[in-house]
Amino acid sequence: MLRRENTREITVGGLKIGHQDKVVIQSMTNTKTKDVKATVAQIKKLEEVGCELIRVAVLDEDDAYAISEIKKEIGIPIVADIHFNADFAIKCIQNGVDKIRLNPGNIEDEAKIKEVVLLAKSRNVPIRIGINAGSLNKKYERSEVSMIESAKDHIRILEALDFHDICLSFKSSDPLETIRAYRLAADTFEYPLHLGVTEAGTLIDSTLKSSLALGNLLLEGIGDTIRISISDDPVKEVIIAKKLLKACGLYKAVPNLIACPTCGRIQYDMLPIVKEIEEYLYTVDKDIEVAIMGCAVNGPGEARGADIGIAGMKDSALLFKKGQIIKTIAAKDIVKTLKEEIDKF
Amino acid sequence: MLRRENTREITVGGLKIGHQDKVVIQSMTNTKTKDVKATVAQIKKLEEVGCELIRVAVLDEDDAYAISEIKKEIGIPIVADIHFNADFAIKCIQNGVDKIRLNPGNIEDEAKIKEVVLLAKSRNVPIRIGINAGSLNKKYERSEVSMIESAKDHIRILEALDFHDICLSFKSSDPLETIRAYRLAADTFEYPLHLGVTEAGTLIDSTLKSSLALGNLLLEGIGDTIRISISDDPVKEVIIAKKLLKACGLYKAVPNLIACPTCGRIQYDMLPIVKEIEEYLYTVDKDIEVAIMGCAVNGPGEARGADIGIAGMKDSALLFKKGQIIKTIAAKDIVKTLKEEIDKF
Repeated sequence: MLRRENTREITVGGLKIGHQDKVVIQSMTNTKTKDVKATVAQIKKLEEVGCELIRVAVLDEDDAYAISEIKKEIGIPIVADIHFNADFAIKCIQNGVDKIRLNPGNIEDEAKIKEVVLLAKSRNVPIRIGINAGSLNKKYERSEVSMIESAKDHIRILEALDFHDICLSFKSSDPLETIRAYRLAADTFEYPLHLGVTEAGTLIDSTLKSSLALGNLLLEGIGDTIRISISDDPVKEVIIAKKLLKACGLYKAVPNLIACPTCGRIQYDMLPIVKEIEEYLYTVDKDIEVAIMGCAVNGPGEARGADIGIAGMKDSALLFKKGQIIKTIAAKDIVKTLKEEIDKF
Repeated sequence: MLRRENTREITVGGLKIGHQDKVVIQSMTNTKTKDVKATVAQIKKLEEVGCELIRVAVLDEDDAYAISEIKKEIGIPIVADIHFNADFAIKCIQNGVDKIRLNPGNIEDEAKIKEVVLLAKSRNVPIRIGINAGSLNKKYERSEVSMIESAKDHIRILEALDFHDICLSFKSSDPLETIRAYRLAADTFEYPLHLGVTEAGTLIDSTLKSSLALGNLLLEGIGDTIRISISDDPVKEVIIAKKLLKACGLYKAVPNLIACPTCGRIQYDMLPIVKEIEEYLYTVDKDIEVAIMGCAVNGPGEARGADIGIAGMKDSALLFKKGQIIKTIAAKDIVKTLKEEIDKF
């Protein structure tokens, strides 16, 4: 099995993917790509929260032409998602796209494929081959083995043209099939792997399925870039990706919020405080651990590793740092004090 | 490593834990236990969504006495969470509790320990020893090895009294430490394991950390009972536990909602429909897969395995079953039609 330190390196507009112990975070816009203003606004928000690579859907010529306008306004590399049309791929590359997602076997005209691939090669534009368990070529029965065979069909076309700037994905909506497919891919290919669970659903469902499947793979050393698919604002995709990488020990500058689940021992209204501090921490780019604990007896001890924490009592709370009690504060000052301490950290 | 089929079996008020390929779902109330009305109301809601075992905090004599009143009203076994007081444990057992959580090494009076353990034995009341990474005995440095050693200290006390109705937990707020500790426990002990990440935080954070850590363990065959700790309504703990077990192939009667993340290809307002159907599915106890897809071109194909699905177009949508298009419906009827089809299934 090839770990991420040993995959082949590709470069996407200056951004390195593969051959390193770092997982690149990406997302996808859900605006009309040809609506340059809306697309740029969304990409800028994504950049702010830590998105490193952005994919846009290209459905027609206007979308392809928009690429050069969008690129002028954003700071991260851009990927064009193209399903079946080689001409759109050519236009995207001519308009400065940094990477394309295209399965070459889906394009029937061989001369066209050759044109796309040679153009991509001359511009150093990598190609992602994206295999989805649910949309395999009809000659295959659905299975992880078929996903690998299908990828080989597409890869052969690129390699025959001496093209090796390739990234691969093997997505399924079933987390267990996703795990099996990527494990087999890491056993089979040297190309970097783009991790994702497809059609993962809502924020909660996708967080669950992605953490289960991609978390498992990440801990095994599999995966060079990641996208968390969520049927929601793409900003959440980036936040969940960062949190998951952090939980796997692969990302530093993300705060971690520890909070006890509350029980019969609680004497103050903890949950609104947790919600407010959770929101606040989304805006903080620090490797800080914050704990909000229900009771003063075990709170500081249980959260000894936290940089800053509070343990609530009846009308007051203990402020602690690294498990040491610093002072007692009034209950009404908990949120304000925590925010101040987070800022000072 | 001992898989769940091979752990020692315990029985909690008729409910079997361990020695089976089934993971028992539990939760904990956050009411005052002595407030019998509120506690019973919360437990009944938890039972409705699939909670199989409920834990309550016992902080004083009134909480202990409330156990017998609560038991009259509920249908699932009840566990008393007791930290340091042997007398409360005795009162809980006398009041009919089905299991206690108590670390015997925390009680200094040896005669008292013996009294508790012999009483528990005579009433067939199992004891859970709960090791938390953050509150180990001060003689230990924090590590998964210390967690195992600490458990051995407590187990020795019970085994010396020929008591073997034991369940063990090894919780940490760090998902990776949680994984390491339970793996080591499965290598060391024959007793059934209660899985959990402690102080896991908000709904999103806990779903992420629990799916990462406990999902990993569940797929390795580790874990006989599970609690997802969430700083929120405990009903959500049970729903996430069910979804995680389902995603791991360990639970059948939970619906699965597949939804694409939406992109520039979308032509209808999909997200409110996804949210409404997600809520509706919480009330459904069926092994059904429902897909809500953004575009009609790939939708039914990508979601071929779904029992029921829709793929949106501009003012209408395709209704499909098992990837076959059944008919076209008006956009305004999507939610109604999906609910009808779910009910019919």
